[in-house]
Amino acid sequence: MIRGKFITLEGGEGVGKTTNMAFIKDYLQQHDISVVVTREPGGTELAEKIRKLLLDNDSETISEQAELLLMFAARAQHIKHVIEPALAHGKWVLCDRFTDATYAYQGGGRNMKISTIQWLENLVQGTLRPDLTLLLDAPVDIGIERVRKRGAFDRFESEKVSFFENIRRAYLLQAELYPERIKLIKANQPLPDVQRAITDVIRVLLGLCSLNCPASPRHGSVK
Amino acid sequence: MIRGKFITLEGGEGVGKTTNMAFIKDYLQQHDISVVVTREPGGTELAEKIRKLLLDNDSETISEQAELLLMFAARAQHIKHVIEPALAHGKWVLCDRFTDATYAYQGGGRNMKISTIQWLENLVQGTLRPDLTLLLDAPVDIGIERVRKRGAFDRFESEKVSFFENIRRAYLLQAELYPERIKLIKANQPLPDVQRAITDVIRVLLGLCSLNCPASPRHGSVK
Repeated sequence: MIRGKFITLEGGEGVGKTTNMAFIKDYLQQHDISVVVTREPGGTELAEKIRKLLLDNDSETISEQAELLLMFAARAQHIKHVIEPALAHGKWVLCDRFTDATYAYQGGGRNMKISTIQWLENLVQGTLRPDLTLLLDAPVDIGIERVRKRGAFDRFESEKVSFFENIRRAYLLQAELYPERIKLIKANQPLPDVQRAITDVIRVLLGLCSLNCPASPRHGSVK
Repeated sequence: MIRGKFITLEGGEGVGKTTNMAFIKDYLQQHDISVVVTREPGGTELAEKIRKLLLDNDSETISEQAELLLMFAARAQHIKHVIEPALAHGKWVLCDRFTDATYAYQGGGRNMKISTIQWLENLVQGTLRPDLTLLLDAPVDIGIERVRKRGAFDRFESEKVSFFENIRRAYLLQAELYPERIKLIKANQPLPDVQRAITDVIRVLLGLCSLNCPASPRHGSVK
């Protein structure tokens, strides 16, 4: 059994993750890939309960440390019960946010130490890392405007603009640190262009196109 | 403001923690100590929700790592919102189980690495350690018998006998490692004798009796 590929989709608020998750799923299925679509925090019964604790806006203030540990508790459960079994059975896993989001939100947003996040990442993931991460990036004001239109905000969406600026900066740093894995997709362009950039990257992973294809990324950035 | 003292009560299933928590609380109040009584996992609104996730017997299997991280997530919240503020205001904190229980249950019981627990302890607690830990100890079969009489079992109480033997062994190891802090109380003796042993130890903490009192402990063990 050939192990499946692990794809994560990342980005701040309102960058179009939901639309593009569905698009990527369809694209993979059109190429006869059996794909498990999941999300973080969440993806199992327990992890979804943890997600609810993390996102609810009506409970006591959650300490930064508790938030970080809850994220990794949910992740440990998700990896053991969903991600690893699927990959081992040759399925591809498409996950809406993963550990890059922890570096962005808890690292950049909450100012938790990077070394602490790294230690927890190694504890919970061992050697597991995504094969490909698509980072949807747009200026913060554009994303916030989209979220505002959606209505009620969760605990993260209710934060200040500076929080989201720090998240975006941390995401971009991750993309600089791991250019082979993380492909930056400009989200503030017409949707067909976004999705063309996405398929250019995924075609490489599918073996439909080599890194030398004219339209494919070489340095982690895709127009 | 003189910082309060932090007392924890530890022990496996059915060793009489509930009865003796109430006894210790009353004893401290009789000595004009303002005491906050709390428990782990739990002690805040969020931490009690995490407790429910941990103890419920009806959900999916919880991975060892998720269990450990949930324990420390609840602890981080508990320390920040309850324990530290109380101690800083001069109150004493009496807590039903704390990190020694993590060494016993997740270390001894689930076989999680001690170095992992130590790392999380340092992350979440910094330099905070209990001033005194009372470890109620009894042979495992006695405790299990008491729990059986209570009726419905939570997720931990439903484990096998070997699980509880490992927990007891890990608790006793903690007492050996920290004899100054952890005082061993034999729980399989008549209740008045158990409570006499408890007050002997607490009197030292209250400054009512020095370590040279005939009835007080010198080597971490109290008959």
